[in-house]
Amino acid sequence: MKENDKIDVAVLGCTGAVGQKLVSLLGKHPQFNIRELVASDRSAGKTYSGRVNWKEPLPVPENVKDIVIKTVSDPLESRILFSGLDASVAGEAESAYAEKGHIVVSNSRNHRMDAFVPLIIPEINASHLAIVKKQESYVKNGGFIVTNPNCSTIVLALAVYPAFARFGLDKVMAVTMQAISGGGYPGVPSMDILGNVIPYIGGEEEKIERELAKIFGTVGEDGITPGDFIVSAACNRVPVRDGHTVCVSFSTRKKAGREELLDAIEHCYPALGLYSSPEKVLEYNPSEDRPQPLMDVNAGKGMTVTAGRLRPCGILDWKMTAFGHNTVRGAAGAAVLNAELIVKQGFLKK
Amino acid sequence: MKENDKIDVAVLGCTGAVGQKLVSLLGKHPQFNIRELVASDRSAGKTYSGRVNWKEPLPVPENVKDIVIKTVSDPLESRILFSGLDASVAGEAESAYAEKGHIVVSNSRNHRMDAFVPLIIPEINASHLAIVKKQESYVKNGGFIVTNPNCSTIVLALAVYPAFARFGLDKVMAVTMQAISGGGYPGVPSMDILGNVIPYIGGEEEKIERELAKIFGTVGEDGITPGDFIVSAACNRVPVRDGHTVCVSFSTRKKAGREELLDAIEHCYPALGLYSSPEKVLEYNPSEDRPQPLMDVNAGKGMTVTAGRLRPCGILDWKMTAFGHNTVRGAAGAAVLNAELIVKQGFLKK
Amino acid sequence: MKENDKIDVAVLGCTGAVGQKLVSLLGKHPQFNIRELVASDRSAGKTYSGRVNWKEPLPVPENVKDIVIKTVSDPLESRILFSGLDASVAGEAESAYAEKGHIVVSNSRNHRMDAFVPLIIPEINASHLAIVKKQESYVKNGGFIVTNPNCSTIVLALAVYPAFARFGLDKVMAVTMQAISGGGYPGVPSMDILGNVIPYIGGEEEKIERELAKIFGTVGEDGITPGDFIVSAACNRVPVRDGHTVCVSFSTRKKAGREELLDAIEHCYPALGLYSSPEKVLEYNPSEDRPQPLMDVNAGKGMTVTAGRLRPCGILDWKMTAFGHNTVRGAAGAAVLNAELIVKQGFLKK
Amino acid sequence: MKENDKIDVAVLGCTGAVGQKLVSLLGKHPQFNIRELVASDRSAGKTYSGRVNWKEPLPVPENVKDIVIKTVSDPLESRILFSGLDASVAGEAESAYAEKGHIVVSNSRNHRMDAFVPLIIPEINASHLAIVKKQESYVKNGGFIVTNPNCSTIVLALAVYPAFARFGLDKVMAVTMQAISGGGYPGVPSMDILGNVIPYIGGEEEKIERELAKIFGTVGEDGITPGDFIVSAACNRVPVRDGHTVCVSFSTRKKAGREELLDAIEHCYPALGLYSSPEKVLEYNPSEDRPQPLMDVNAGKGMTVTAGRLRPCGILDWKMTAFGHNTVRGAAGAAVLNAELIVKQGFLKK
Repeated sequence: MKENDKIDVAVLGCTGAVGQKLVSLLGKHPQFNIRELVASDRSAGKTYSGRVNWKEPLPVPENVKDIVIKTVSDPLESRILFSGLDASVAGEAESAYAEKGHIVVSNSRNHRMDAFVPLIIPEINASHLAIVKKQESYVKNGGFIVTNPNCSTIVLALAVYPAFARFGLDKVMAVTMQAISGGGYPGVPSMDILGNVIPYIGGEEEKIERELAKIFGTVGEDGITPGDFIVSAACNRVPVRDGHTVCVSFSTRKKAGREELLDAIEHCYPALGLYSSPEKVLEYNPSEDRPQPLMDVNAGKGMTVTAGRLRPCGILDWKMTAFGHNTVRGAAGAAVLNAELIVKQGFLKK
Repeated sequence: MKENDKIDVAVLGCTGAVGQKLVSLLGKHPQFNIRELVASDRSAGKTYSGRVNWKEPLPVPENVKDIVIKTVSDPLESRILFSGLDASVAGEAESAYAEKGHIVVSNSRNHRMDAFVPLIIPEINASHLAIVKKQESYVKNGGFIVTNPNCSTIVLALAVYPAFARFGLDKVMAVTMQAISGGGYPGVPSMDILGNVIPYIGGEEEKIERELAKIFGTVGEDGITPGDFIVSAACNRVPVRDGHTVCVSFSTRKKAGREELLDAIEHCYPALGLYSSPEKVLEYNPSEDRPQPLMDVNAGKGMTVTAGRLRPCGILDWKMTAFGHNTVRGAAGAAVLNAELIVKQGFLKK
Repeated sequence: MKENDKIDVAVLGCTGAVGQKLVSLLGKHPQFNIRELVASDRSAGKTYSGRVNWKEPLPVPENVKDIVIKTVSDPLESRILFSGLDASVAGEAESAYAEKGHIVVSNSRNHRMDAFVPLIIPEINASHLAIVKKQESYVKNGGFIVTNPNCSTIVLALAVYPAFARFGLDKVMAVTMQAISGGGYPGVPSMDILGNVIPYIGGEEEKIERELAKIFGTVGEDGITPGDFIVSAACNRVPVRDGHTVCVSFSTRKKAGREELLDAIEHCYPALGLYSSPEKVLEYNPSEDRPQPLMDVNAGKGMTVTAGRLRPCGILDWKMTAFGHNTVRGAAGAAVLNAELIVKQGFLKK
Repeated sequence: MKENDKIDVAVLGCTGAVGQKLVSLLGKHPQFNIRELVASDRSAGKTYSGRVNWKEPLPVPENVKDIVIKTVSDPLESRILFSGLDASVAGEAESAYAEKGHIVVSNSRNHRMDAFVPLIIPEINASHLAIVKKQESYVKNGGFIVTNPNCSTIVLALAVYPAFARFGLDKVMAVTMQAISGGGYPGVPSMDILGNVIPYIGGEEEKIERELAKIFGTVGEDGITPGDFIVSAACNRVPVRDGHTVCVSFSTRKKAGREELLDAIEHCYPALGLYSSPEKVLEYNPSEDRPQPLMDVNAGKGMTVTAGRLRPCGILDWKMTAFGHNTVRGAAGAAVLNAELIVKQGFLKK
């Protein structure tokens, strides 16, 4: 694909933590070209490099540096908009963009549970994308909203999907140890987390419990019918930079042996042919002390979830530990992958 | 009690991490006086202050500095021996001391599951102490071994005991986030844990599952019959200095409301009249983001366990977070408390 | 001294980090009684415990919990005001309070370099206090402002004062490694400092260079004539909770041997008879790897500065490492000590 | 260059921290092929992947996994040997290898100060390499030893070399904040460094002071005459994973302005045409809060040193902060670069 064949996109909330990661990932994307950037009124009118307090390890992409930031009230030319907007404004703004015919690929939580807004992890529920056709804006002008799940939900979902797909899930108990980058910037004060554990992340447990059921749900006339299993989550913040660790116990409807589960983990993910989907969607590491944030955070360029320590649980059937990069697989990379799916399924053509 | 009325004691394994904490706690104890110190052959013959690589925040107690270290083969004059011996030598050494008539108050894991060795948390199962009378050495010469549980087990046990005592326990699921001091010194390499989570601590999960049942068990002719409930644990190391955090879900035999549980937490612990037992054995903190290691580690001088976030669990009945100081309440302080119980129950008199 | 003989004081900026430490230290002070609390308009009218986001390890003092917070425009009854006001408002507010006859004991930077405002470390320059008599407000109504130096300056000043007092200072080169608590709350984002070093703290190097000269200056008609030596500082933030470490090289006017310097460190600090001045103002630790934040932060309840590693420097005469608690000795404790000096010198009586 | 045209090499001390980094860097090197691996007797006879406790972020290179580890007494076929041997054995072992005709490219400290052993940073003193011809082993059979400096010395040397080359150095004062990876594995206990600073690293200050003079020395008949300037160093360990930060003050013989110094930094490094020498050997970052470990550790794949904060010093002429990756530029990458220089200068042909 030649440079000028790339699809122009905009990044909403471009100066925030998720926005920066979106800019970083899209800066070298073979299919998308960042044409427009949107942020708050305070940033509007300034060039990106002049305004952003850049925190990504790689430098600001050259072709983005001089883009002048727009506000949410400015009209946009790009059809696809990646939204890393703050939840305080994302609700209305994303709806308004869809009304105008844009495809909003959002990482924000606001519309995740809306009836006809799909909550997509392409390797799990690509078929859910079809329900966008029931969004009013789609009917009117082809605009729609697609969301990706919360960061810790994505890690958990990718870890237990093989068991769900092959044997059916009954119960899932998850305890998370989440990285500070999940709190954005400036986010978690160092005084609160250095050498500490914070056993609470506002709204996070509810998100995991609610979103997992929708992701594993079935498409029907009225939207998604949630999966019929129980989820219970406890969420903690730990002094780790990137990557959420999840201790999960689960029981399946059809009982399965350890080898069967490992086989499901190894083989249940289809090759999707999407640029950002890693070679291994879920990798099982047999070492007794893995996964670990420092060792596994960059697996599959941050898009591979790593599992380990599969062993029997005396209460539910099995225990294991799952880990994934929260700002790549769990946020910006998830949105980019969703956009790739949208293009592949032909939604750009309407 | 006058200085010279104090009971002479020895600390075995006095140069290790647990040994140092024992020395630190006993150095100002109103009832016990450190008379002898025991360590490996390498340390023997040297003064304590000349040999120990002291890591405690408070200085080496004055009256201990010049004590010349003995080896495990040297005879000891003290009746009560506190053992922080390494598990590689504790098994044989502790038995040998008991054979010679000593009372061994051990923090080591070796004898914890022996039939007639009680696994004591005085506020929970002080009555278990009586089974020492069935130890062969006791019958012979009054010597016996008493153990305290593993550090994470103690925190968990103190947190769920009110539910157990009032309503009966059915199932307990625990995920721990454990401090580096639990690994001793030099212990966990900084390369492994700085900014990281290690989802594995060798043998820890088995200890929790096995020991909790024994602690909540009932005394009979053949020793302790374990409590009839299921425990499942997952253990993690996190970059926290002191204090283990435990996310626990549990179900009770008799169903209980939140207020009933909080009432049990508030009232089920008896006042024991032991010097090292804190005013509040288990404190419930109603803030949504507590307990936290940094804020709660010194509650009750490290002897109080703090609980918080009691809320319904969709799978078991309730979820909550518990926290306690692993080297005080979970190790050295636990041993000291056991010794106080032994004295109170009159075992020194035989 | 009976409770009702205590001197009533107010804490300005009571909800901030320094304010909280002041409340914590004054809550158990034998001489002062917190009668009033002042904060921003947003906090005014609320009780302290209902408003403050308390971050101190010890609980809010009982006698302070229910005090209703006032604003800077409210009249105050206390004569002595401890100021932990933010620099953005401290300048005007502190002047206004002095105009009204209050004694303002400030930790803020605004008035530190004013001609007739002394910059006091009681163990070093108690005699400087007399220049307050030249403040206009003092002449008018007995009100005046006294300041303590910046946190890293205090540690450095206490470390090199013995060399200054005995041998005269020529040059001082200081490189600091400063704790996150120096940045207040929320202060330093965890994303910036976890596993990192930030080689810059705005304005800090200038403060050290300027303030040290004033502290070691001489009192004259026109205020303080700065000490005649050169200071060069480089300041870094490191992931340490409390306590600033300073690597210092210095040369003296009169050459001194190592034993002479150690003798100066040991003996040059007078006993002041002030409640908050520690038994040892500066303690030299002979271990090759001390001072260390974790081991020395609570020396003298946070009021003792620890020095170590005194050795020849190939460029200046000597190198050493100094360390002190930045929010106790370096901020709130410094202000409290200044107030004790003010009382002792009889300034309350005018 | 085709695979089979690569030069076979061996890695000595292959299981240690430096050895692992050497294996990691050489695993994808275009010029060198790891043919042999050497470790202690305990590892001998085992495959690399079966024996090594691998701590590198990237996996063990495929072509190295199955190599069977040899001991230092086994004969080696490779001419070039990279030595990450522990200092306790490196002295004798490296000499013995040179005696047998091998070219030993060592990161160990043992031979660094030997008269005819050059201490090489190719971008600074490539001409020093010629003195190996005076080593007895070279004369006999072409074997010789070449060393790279200590990790913190390399960062400092690369940072001040532009000033040295253009204006002459007079005095250099350096205070380091060094990463834990410099201590090897298991290395620094987490109990010692988590949330702490250790103001001492055994032998490190002496190494910096001694080695810098040799690196900047001049080649003569009797070996290297050290540079005529004074160095004073103070070394600290900080809780940072990778990368040493150095606060440096220096004075030059010929006085220079800021722009002249920045020009020297920008232009004084020649393009060497060596594979591992980065595009920018020393990069100046103009932001007031750079360099920082987290942001700059991977500059030039770890081979670029980053400088910042150049500003006047009241005592010496200038202050600045320098930073570099200690295990890449400061150890394994330094050795690899030296080997590339050795090949380029034709030493393989004798």
